[in-house]
Amino acid sequence: MNTDTVSVRADVSLEVVQRYLRMRGELPTRTDRLIVVDRNDRFLGTVTLATLLTDEPERSVGSCLDPESPRIPPEMTAREVSQLFRDRDLVTAAVVEASGRLLGRITIDDVVDVITEEAAHEVMAGAGLRDEEDVFASVVPASRRRLLWLGINLVTAFVAGWVVQRFEGTIEKVAALAALMPIVASMGGIAGTQTVTLIIRGIALGQVDYHNTRWLLWREIGVSLLTGLALALVVGVVTVFWLGTWKIAVIIAAAMVINLLAAAIVGVLVPLTLRRMRVDPALSAGVVLTTFTDVIGFAALLGLGAMFLV
Amino acid sequence: MNTDTVSVRADVSLEVVQRYLRMRGELPTRTDRLIVVDRNDRFLGTVTLATLLTDEPERSVGSCLDPESPRIPPEMTAREVSQLFRDRDLVTAAVVEASGRLLGRITIDDVVDVITEEAAHEVMAGAGLRDEEDVFASVVPASRRRLLWLGINLVTAFVAGWVVQRFEGTIEKVAALAALMPIVASMGGIAGTQTVTLIIRGIALGQVDYHNTRWLLWREIGVSLLTGLALALVVGVVTVFWLGTWKIAVIIAAAMVINLLAAAIVGVLVPLTLRRMRVDPALSAGVVLTTFTDVIGFAALLGLGAMFLV
Repeated sequence: MNTDTVSVRADVSLEVVQRYLRMRGELPTRTDRLIVVDRNDRFLGTVTLATLLTDEPERSVGSCLDPESPRIPPEMTAREVSQLFRDRDLVTAAVVEASGRLLGRITIDDVVDVITEEAAHEVMAGAGLRDEEDVFASVVPASRRRLLWLGINLVTAFVAGWVVQRFEGTIEKVAALAALMPIVASMGGIAGTQTVTLIIRGIALGQVDYHNTRWLLWREIGVSLLTGLALALVVGVVTVFWLGTWKIAVIIAAAMVINLLAAAIVGVLVPLTLRRMRVDPALSAGVVLTTFTDVIGFAALLGLGAMFLV
Repeated sequence: MNTDTVSVRADVSLEVVQRYLRMRGELPTRTDRLIVVDRNDRFLGTVTLATLLTDEPERSVGSCLDPESPRIPPEMTAREVSQLFRDRDLVTAAVVEASGRLLGRITIDDVVDVITEEAAHEVMAGAGLRDEEDVFASVVPASRRRLLWLGINLVTAFVAGWVVQRFEGTIEKVAALAALMPIVASMGGIAGTQTVTLIIRGIALGQVDYHNTRWLLWREIGVSLLTGLALALVVGVVTVFWLGTWKIAVIIAAAMVINLLAAAIVGVLVPLTLRRMRVDPALSAGVVLTTFTDVIGFAALLGLGAMFLV
């Protein structure tokens, strides 16, 4: 917020304002409107420079108020402000207390900064990078910052490894299953990431909330069943030709459908749950998701293998 | 671009301009400056509404030109324009041909749209989602769009699976290696994603180009060696306790260092190479990266296992 506002009284004429401005000299940068106040310095609205230049000089400022005058309460969040600027195509807006006291103004360049930072946050957080980690940090601080995220992911990777280890006996007997492990896990991860990305953007844009969660969940389940069946068919056929066995092909196809279904459910629920827990979903939804898709993918593939192949 | 510009001649006085504006009535929205042209309608600069209101009415328009007048050539890209608006805190700017002919003006709301779309693109493309794929698409079109990306990833997953299958004999004998596979591969993927994300953002912000590639490559190699050694130590110690064998622990530690080093190199070179090939790195760098980190991770772990454990 800037405090370099220029205010004028409602009861003077435009001509008087023009004389005042000429005496005053330069206006603060990006002034597109003057603030109009009453005798007690309470905010009444704004009058645009364009109105000052085009309207009858005899008219009073009070009769030329911009009816669309934006008025921002000091407690409004940066995101809400940037939404308001975008919806109403504003250049500047006055910040006004509930009592009517003028606090200052917000200009479009601050809003552009907020939009740019939010976008950077969404992109960077997905890789566990803090927004301030820039391209030119030197080796030691960069390593220290990234190790935190790598460490968190290491724990989840060990969980996936531990699930696989439960099936060591099965793998010893049917080593081909090990070759199929990365396929089931990575496809679940990709499908889930698509869902998570859509939901996080929907949350950021204010399109997703608890009212449409059920609809979204069913939509994603529908998408995962359609894509899962299509991919299962392809994977099954390729596996028959590759490994020469239809039994394993049926098992990887089934594991694929199970994992994509799980990815859809986890992909919708995790960002919404994290948000309700006041944890930033952009930062953490990805790790939680891939932990689920790895574990469920390995368990489905190796579990079915243990049941039907050994 | 809008064509609703208001232009005035340089040789008239501010007072004449004011009279003209009052006769004209309303100005187009977000007009913060008038375009100044010569007798042949060639662009000379701009004069701000603030200047019209604060300067001496007797002065000529030509003597009050804004010295910082932005002038956008029609061939300038949307990204360059948005950078210019941000650097110079502009609200509007004239679009002018090299010959001096005025074509129109660009306003800040268009720039905000470009910034918002670019940010959305970077986030969505990382999951293979087209920008227009919104949260409320219905099942069948959503499935069709996502299948393309899932199909591309399926091919790369099969490549990783094929590498694992080359080592079927090793896995049959040392099934514990299968439990360590997801750990090496996923840590490489996470580390590489951090590098790729930084480089893509650096490219988007114009901070990364061929001049500092070598420096960035060495920085990322340094970071990967530091973090790789730290993680290798942790993974090695955990593996000794978990599987009760120091031989496998040394092998996974070595594979971890190799894969993180590979992730750093691939993470720097892939986005830059894709960009040189005029392929959008935001869309495709992730797939290429994880293909490399999966293949190199599996090959390092299982290859070392085949050499030293069987």
